[in-house]
Amino acid sequence: MAPSKESAALKELFEGFAAAFPADGDPYLSRAIYDQVHKAATEASGVAYEDTTAGGRPCIWIRPESASTKHVILFMHGGGFSFGSPNGHRKLAAHLAKACNFDYRLTPENPYPAPLDDCVAAYKWLLDQGYEAKNIVVAGDSCGGGLSTSLPLAAVQQGLPNPGAAVSLSPWYDLTCKNGESFSSNEQNDVLNTKEFVQVIADRYVAGGTSKEDPLVSPLFADLSGLPPTWISVGGFDMLRDQGVLLAEKAKKEGAEVVLEVHEGQQHVMEFMAGNAPEADESLRRIGQWVREKIGS
Amino acid sequence: MAPSKESAALKELFEGFAAAFPADGDPYLSRAIYDQVHKAATEASGVAYEDTTAGGRPCIWIRPESASTKHVILFMHGGGFSFGSPNGHRKLAAHLAKACNFDYRLTPENPYPAPLDDCVAAYKWLLDQGYEAKNIVVAGDSCGGGLSTSLPLAAVQQGLPNPGAAVSLSPWYDLTCKNGESFSSNEQNDVLNTKEFVQVIADRYVAGGTSKEDPLVSPLFADLSGLPPTWISVGGFDMLRDQGVLLAEKAKKEGAEVVLEVHEGQQHVMEFMAGNAPEADESLRRIGQWVREKIGS
Repeated sequence: MAPSKESAALKELFEGFAAAFPADGDPYLSRAIYDQVHKAATEASGVAYEDTTAGGRPCIWIRPESASTKHVILFMHGGGFSFGSPNGHRKLAAHLAKACNFDYRLTPENPYPAPLDDCVAAYKWLLDQGYEAKNIVVAGDSCGGGLSTSLPLAAVQQGLPNPGAAVSLSPWYDLTCKNGESFSSNEQNDVLNTKEFVQVIADRYVAGGTSKEDPLVSPLFADLSGLPPTWISVGGFDMLRDQGVLLAEKAKKEGAEVVLEVHEGQQHVMEFMAGNAPEADESLRRIGQWVREKIGS
Repeated sequence: MAPSKESAALKELFEGFAAAFPADGDPYLSRAIYDQVHKAATEASGVAYEDTTAGGRPCIWIRPESASTKHVILFMHGGGFSFGSPNGHRKLAAHLAKACNFDYRLTPENPYPAPLDDCVAAYKWLLDQGYEAKNIVVAGDSCGGGLSTSLPLAAVQQGLPNPGAAVSLSPWYDLTCKNGESFSSNEQNDVLNTKEFVQVIADRYVAGGTSKEDPLVSPLFADLSGLPPTWISVGGFDMLRDQGVLLAEKAKKEGAEVVLEVHEGQQHVMEFMAGNAPEADESLRRIGQWVREKIGS
């Protein structure tokens, strides 16, 4: 099926980002530019917002009218660990329903393990609030999609229970970027990322000295047998496409339950176009249905 | 009274803007940077949002729980006519209560009269929706505060009824900037604006050939006798402070009902800090009380 007319909007938005991103990687400008990603989505109706903190980090609590009070999604925004914010991802998280989209610390100021530590702290905070682990969904896009997989792995290592399910949108699973054809074959199709750019932000994440092959940095190198049920959605034109494909194959082989959806002809995180492009709405509808089955909501 | 500790946040945010604003005035970067103004405010709780169009322009419809369905605020965001957006001003407008914060066309692409035309079209759209003029409040900040005064003047000229009330936060009333001491005396105190910068964006607004002394461009030069009840709030450290003071004096002399509040030691549009700084909350509380009296809500 050809991409919808509406779904061309993300490509145009990303082309604007790519043209404006400062060559020196200035975090201030990069963050201001990337926060405009909200423009791809409509406002989700019937949703209220509240500022709070989750495990000590700023967080927007997103409450759809008539949502269950027992279930929650912990949403980890994307932006290469270095930009992106709860505000920029607010509409996407709202469309993903009752969500907790919080502001983990960013690179270059805070390399690994700070961002992952903040995610685990936020997860622990939800448990401390009385949410049962089986009722918690962890979700995120891009580097946040990687965190949606490394968070459960780290949590279990620390003796915490597994969340009920994980949702990874266009996840970044391999910071070495050595695995999968799409990192090269999609370089022309992917209007947001370039090899140099991904290299720069990968280096920022491991600036503390951790290897890019550390399983909590790049979950593609992890033992995935203990993963919670995981939904992986990737764009066909995304340079990171095959990272999602490869992790899904590996996790299934190791006994985990994984659903993989490849959206042909689509850019990185096409779900940003929630409310505007039919593919984004359909993907979120299918994710929502699957999540409700997994966590009994 | 000394400014609160919390209210220093706007100064810091604006200092960041001023340092990052591109010297060549690039609208793309300027807009991305200025949209971060939302950071000064908290999320307003119990408020839902919906995308719509108002008179053909994109608009976020902001609906507080249990708000009257008969009354509405038409909110015109600031940003020198050249940047700013419904998203960047979403939280401020939400705190200002049931508001309709829409996206008029911006300079440099669309000089006067396009922005004002869009405001009048949005106002007309509200009337066409069945809202009674006396139940409509027009409101805005900075250039949007100027529009809150020029919109009623233009509406009446076009045979439309006056709105019930107007709220102008740190309004820009004189694009010549020749009136009032504060434009010079506050240049060191005002961390956001400079004379050169205000000159550039004033020139953008009148690039279509209109005089800066046209009464619909600079309401300070208008006959103000027909103004609706108007609340003007200005910051003591704002270069535009005296423009609000002078218009208030002139309007009162000509028979209009105007309330002027000068917030000593505060920056441009201190109400951006809604939910975070006590001065901003107090200003909005007083405005809300006055608006309810004026429109009987």
